[in-house]
Amino acid sequence: MSVKKTVLEDIKKIILVASGKGGVGKSTVAAGLALSLAKEGFSVGLLDADVFGPSVPTLFQMSDAGRPDGTQINGKNIILPFEKFGIKIMSIGFFVDPSQAVIWRGPMVTNVLRQLLTETDWGKLDYLIIDTPPGTGDIHITLMQEFYISGAIIVTTPQKIALDDVHRAIGMLTDSSIGAPIIGIIENMAWFSPTKHPDEKYFLFGQGGGELLSKKYKTPLLAQIPINENITDNCDNGNIQKIFNDKNIEIAFDQLVNSVLN
Amino acid sequence: MSVKKTVLEDIKKIILVASGKGGVGKSTVAAGLALSLAKEGFSVGLLDADVFGPSVPTLFQMSDAGRPDGTQINGKNIILPFEKFGIKIMSIGFFVDPSQAVIWRGPMVTNVLRQLLTETDWGKLDYLIIDTPPGTGDIHITLMQEFYISGAIIVTTPQKIALDDVHRAIGMLTDSSIGAPIIGIIENMAWFSPTKHPDEKYFLFGQGGGELLSKKYKTPLLAQIPINENITDNCDNGNIQKIFNDKNIEIAFDQLVNSVLN
Repeated sequence: MSVKKTVLEDIKKIILVASGKGGVGKSTVAAGLALSLAKEGFSVGLLDADVFGPSVPTLFQMSDAGRPDGTQINGKNIILPFEKFGIKIMSIGFFVDPSQAVIWRGPMVTNVLRQLLTETDWGKLDYLIIDTPPGTGDIHITLMQEFYISGAIIVTTPQKIALDDVHRAIGMLTDSSIGAPIIGIIENMAWFSPTKHPDEKYFLFGQGGGELLSKKYKTPLLAQIPINENITDNCDNGNIQKIFNDKNIEIAFDQLVNSVLN
Repeated sequence: MSVKKTVLEDIKKIILVASGKGGVGKSTVAAGLALSLAKEGFSVGLLDADVFGPSVPTLFQMSDAGRPDGTQINGKNIILPFEKFGIKIMSIGFFVDPSQAVIWRGPMVTNVLRQLLTETDWGKLDYLIIDTPPGTGDIHITLMQEFYISGAIIVTTPQKIALDDVHRAIGMLTDSSIGAPIIGIIENMAWFSPTKHPDEKYFLFGQGGGELLSKKYKTPLLAQIPINENITDNCDNGNIQKIFNDKNIEIAFDQLVNSVLN
């Protein structure tokens, strides 16, 4: 099926962060990438398209930010995004009560996504990073069918049971009718080193998954990100910008940004 | 909207395992619960309704099982489930190529779910455990609107960013029009103790999330399950039955089964 794509003239590149598997750290990677690109001087937007589990408001300590303002320009609805660390941020999470389930069927989800993407006042952007939900459903289909996607970053944890789902996400991205270019793979929660025993590495979620995917699909393993209590803590407390204080994390995101720029 | 519910006469109780958040171990809990109930002598079915990320075939080493056989009885289509450890097992994963993305929009997803639920030859079951996908979308709406759900088990990890999504799932389960009773909460990945340092506990995903939910919603915290390399390894290698060799895991599932039976 051929759908006429919508051109977002003011946005140079749209990059999806996807996985297939939930809970692997897509939002952390999407937020970290947006921050890193902004630090390099690019104008960056971050769209949290995980309608059933928007994490971006928490990561940026914006859970209490309330509803974004809306206005009309030349009869067109415009939503004003929030801005933090120079990033324009929009999330379905800004519109729903945190304790309220988003009990929406597919078509409703798709409409909301289109609205957030096309009616947000993004201004001129070099990069719009889109954090996508787990799975390969309505959100992904709509994004890839209706918009021009410059590239996708695949996030996985090393274990097989995550890889199973990631294979499917890659299947979607390489689909001949709706596919988008894959920039590469991020292996998250790659290992854990206790602060007390910095030389010990525990592979809680197995080992080698990112490399395996990289070889199988001939796509680069962009970075391996370890897990530790500081990352969880910074994410939970809305201090996403502090994750870079960890040398390993800083290196990982430097690698990721270089891959996106090249 | 009032929808006439389908009665599955031969199934005494349907229990959903849900979360809102992906990657928290819903499938491990669903599979562990099914195994534990079967060990107690109940007739048990396990339906993997995570259409975009079916993990049950991997957990039970059935990824290569192929397609379940189909037949017709009195003009009705019947799918024959696989059986392992006395559990009747059905998963969307049996019907799709592991590397093939399930690129389906909502209505298609809903139809497949209905088929797996109503056309599988479950026989007479005391319990049908349904492993649901992350989120609060089409699968959940269909299950709760169209079938009688005896209860739901909520799985979470301790960190805030998981709880955000779990609040929403609880919001769905307590929704006045489609809700279902909540049996209680399982806190998974509660802590990590290295084999080398068994007295040390690392709270990789924070602490106290399960208790917080339990208090807020006045629903019991059924068990806390630690994380370690053995669990990941057993799940990845299709040895889900071996997770009970770990004393902590065995205790956690005993507690869970008791809550389900009472």
